[in-house]
Amino acid sequence: MLTEGILATDHYQLTMAQLYHSYGLADRTAQFDYHFRHYPDYGDHQAGYCITAGLGPLIDWMEHTWFGPAEADALRTVQTSSGKRLFGDPFIEWLTRSDGFASLSMWAIPEGRVVHPKTPVVTVEAPLAVAQLLETPLLNRLNYATLVATKTSRAVEAAGGTAVLEFGMRRAPGPAADSATRAALIGGAAGSSNFATSHRLGFESRGTHAHSLVQVFIAESGSELEAFRAYADLYPDDCLLLVDTINTLESGLPNAIKVFEELSRKGHRPVGIRLDSGDLAYLAVRAAAMLDRAGFEDVAIVLSSDLDELTIWQVRNQILEEAGDYGVDAGSLLDRLVYGVGTRLVTSDGCPSPNGVFKLVAVKDSSSEWTAAIKISETPSKVLDPGRKRLWRIYNHRGTATADLITLDGFDPGVRPIQLVHPGHPEVGRILTARQVSRVEPLRVKVLESGRRVGGDFGDLEAARARRSADLARLDPGVRRLVNPHTYHVSLSPELSNLKQELIAGLQM
Amino acid sequence: MLTEGILATDHYQLTMAQLYHSYGLADRTAQFDYHFRHYPDYGDHQAGYCITAGLGPLIDWMEHTWFGPAEADALRTVQTSSGKRLFGDPFIEWLTRSDGFASLSMWAIPEGRVVHPKTPVVTVEAPLAVAQLLETPLLNRLNYATLVATKTSRAVEAAGGTAVLEFGMRRAPGPAADSATRAALIGGAAGSSNFATSHRLGFESRGTHAHSLVQVFIAESGSELEAFRAYADLYPDDCLLLVDTINTLESGLPNAIKVFEELSRKGHRPVGIRLDSGDLAYLAVRAAAMLDRAGFEDVAIVLSSDLDELTIWQVRNQILEEAGDYGVDAGSLLDRLVYGVGTRLVTSDGCPSPNGVFKLVAVKDSSSEWTAAIKISETPSKVLDPGRKRLWRIYNHRGTATADLITLDGFDPGVRPIQLVHPGHPEVGRILTARQVSRVEPLRVKVLESGRRVGGDFGDLEAARARRSADLARLDPGVRRLVNPHTYHVSLSPELSNLKQELIAGLQM
Repeated sequence: MLTEGILATDHYQLTMAQLYHSYGLADRTAQFDYHFRHYPDYGDHQAGYCITAGLGPLIDWMEHTWFGPAEADALRTVQTSSGKRLFGDPFIEWLTRSDGFASLSMWAIPEGRVVHPKTPVVTVEAPLAVAQLLETPLLNRLNYATLVATKTSRAVEAAGGTAVLEFGMRRAPGPAADSATRAALIGGAAGSSNFATSHRLGFESRGTHAHSLVQVFIAESGSELEAFRAYADLYPDDCLLLVDTINTLESGLPNAIKVFEELSRKGHRPVGIRLDSGDLAYLAVRAAAMLDRAGFEDVAIVLSSDLDELTIWQVRNQILEEAGDYGVDAGSLLDRLVYGVGTRLVTSDGCPSPNGVFKLVAVKDSSSEWTAAIKISETPSKVLDPGRKRLWRIYNHRGTATADLITLDGFDPGVRPIQLVHPGHPEVGRILTARQVSRVEPLRVKVLESGRRVGGDFGDLEAARARRSADLARLDPGVRRLVNPHTYHVSLSPELSNLKQELIAGLQM
Repeated sequence: MLTEGILATDHYQLTMAQLYHSYGLADRTAQFDYHFRHYPDYGDHQAGYCITAGLGPLIDWMEHTWFGPAEADALRTVQTSSGKRLFGDPFIEWLTRSDGFASLSMWAIPEGRVVHPKTPVVTVEAPLAVAQLLETPLLNRLNYATLVATKTSRAVEAAGGTAVLEFGMRRAPGPAADSATRAALIGGAAGSSNFATSHRLGFESRGTHAHSLVQVFIAESGSELEAFRAYADLYPDDCLLLVDTINTLESGLPNAIKVFEELSRKGHRPVGIRLDSGDLAYLAVRAAAMLDRAGFEDVAIVLSSDLDELTIWQVRNQILEEAGDYGVDAGSLLDRLVYGVGTRLVTSDGCPSPNGVFKLVAVKDSSSEWTAAIKISETPSKVLDPGRKRLWRIYNHRGTATADLITLDGFDPGVRPIQLVHPGHPEVGRILTARQVSRVEPLRVKVLESGRRVGGDFGDLEAARARRSADLARLDPGVRRLVNPHTYHVSLSPELSNLKQELIAGLQM
């Protein structure tokens, strides 16, 4: 289908590609960087790090996508304002005969890693027109996945060790539900309600029943209790009951406990209850007290209803304050909670708009020498770091990541001291001595060499999940803070900073 | 692919469907309503209406989707906690042999219409298990499209008659870009940068060039002027130049004007310039002054960079204040503006999370009599309007829509006076006399009868666009206000209100 192929792109990528072709520049080798401009700011809380996601599906897509007959036909139909053909045959022939993404190499930070703004997360080297045509599809795939993985990671951190489940499919942006579920799993979700995507990725999908089940049994001159009994009969070892259809404390919980007792007598272990409305913290405390009294100290209490990292954090705090009033041990209650996070996760609520960009940073001139490219613009934060670059993470002797360093090719990570320059203020710098540095890690790996996969394990979600956990353990707690996090340092090497200043000065002359 | 079929759904839809099957309820006819709970609230501004979208693609999908061998295989792999098969063969056989959506009827408000919260935008009547299985796919398709169409309509209103273009593909949530573009066109966008979707829908895609084009020519020891000349040479009748790569006023605009003069001498009409950074209102005024002086009073000035309805409104107000200072006629300038709206449109920035729900409202009992279903819950705003309902719009003698009325079946729209009851406060009501009512319009049409299309023109985007314009013209300006809009009335008929109160009382006994 046309909307899944290479023409699922911005119109101007095609007009520019034709221009490059027309001026003999289409095959000129160029480098483009993908970076995001700033952390997600959710309004009342802010991210201090992002989690990379989306690279695996992007590479899968690139492997089987380029111009074919259907795309050529579509291009031939487009007209200029004066009624001529907008795309000429020479360009269309060049496209269909070109190697496409098989002529492209890529360096990238693997999925699941902690990343920071203005660092080159992905660099593409390809014929200019090919790299240009990749811009929209790449942004479209990486931007959203990174937002969802980041938001999930924050919810998982807020949950403090108990499970976060992704329940967002119904509120996800249409077919993006698939990307959302995958990104949520990279971000640390324990599972998802999305059946097909979970199945595809080798995870068990999760979920039990909705209010409608209870409504059906009530309408069928039955009752909530009959609905719960039916569920327990059919799923005796997976019995998790939604208790808020009528009245949580007066109907749902007493009925659930009755059914749990019946299950226990038959030798089954009830799984839990779910609360989906009202004051979740208060109801969780009251539910725990009732379940404890009935001898069900172990069943899970699943909370859902517009949760995000901040709500989870507040629910936990309210439980710490309020549990004692009802004779409930707050710690045990927190340990049995599970959070179903949906809408706000898959929409990155508070900051739905990603700010990732894909910018030209270098192009080979007619004698095959690299020339660094820059863009100044009217908005200072949009000024690019030019040239062919590398990206490093510096760790101190406690194993904590202290700075990301962007350098030009040729930087030697073994040399001490290391000079760091502020990316926006070239006059501000600092020096890291050998005593301050235990390790300098190259953050990117070469993943594609002329279209062939040469590195990375992009199909392996478990590896991505492990990378996220490991990176968070190496991150300063202040940077991980949910609200107003400490700013992580991203610096330039002196050589890169100098190149940037020279190019800016050159343009301003 | 599994992720595009019927298993792209929430896990619990399947466990519930199996339960219905197991209890002989799967084929019991039921009605579910789709409605949204409240208008989008963008924080500093709020919607006073929504625009329906997403129904066409939903119906297309339903027409060719149900359980096949791949789905059956996937279900067979799922295990319970105790290691048994979760989905039994009788259920899987019932699914694969069922008529699926061919047994479903649907009433819906056509796409492009103004709609309000808590009104049944779509009602589905189908065997209980079939309707239940439709919940997630339906919400997933209607929720996002409605948000984007609504946000677009607001941007179009803010633009006051000049074109709004959808440029959001790169920031759209992955494959949802296709839905976003379609919804934006329903919401009144004049066009989109999304090539494939525009092509599929019969619209011309829009766009010119990016900063990278200028960067390439600069790196190629050329200049911005050379880039503009190359563009004008290749696209002489579609020449729209991005002027902010280096410096808008000192480089971009003078170079663009030079190229426009060259084009004019060759008999071509330049199209316009685009501003993508800085103070857009101020730069638009300065650009207009420079273009006017050079004799290019007609070329368009396209604005882009994080625009939404509120920014557009503010840009227009600033121009009204500031244009005179530079000898520019504000009205003429406003008329030549075009707005490229991207990120904030396709993410429904400020309110990315839709609140549409799909709830059981009636089910046939064992003797084929309809029973109304209700759900109370702990959150008052989540209480349902029960039963099989109809939806009407009431117009006054000026042709303005004054209220939407939800009734039970059997309401006679010709009877006067009309009694309206507040949906949340049954003691509050009002009466519309014959003098206050010119017309009572049924808002929904039957679109599917046992799976066959029987009404509506859901492939026809132009019809949807026309419906939006017509509905907005019939809406009170206060309701259309961008900030703090007047609240439109949605009321219940006395019979429906009474039924609701009876069911609530019955559950609370």
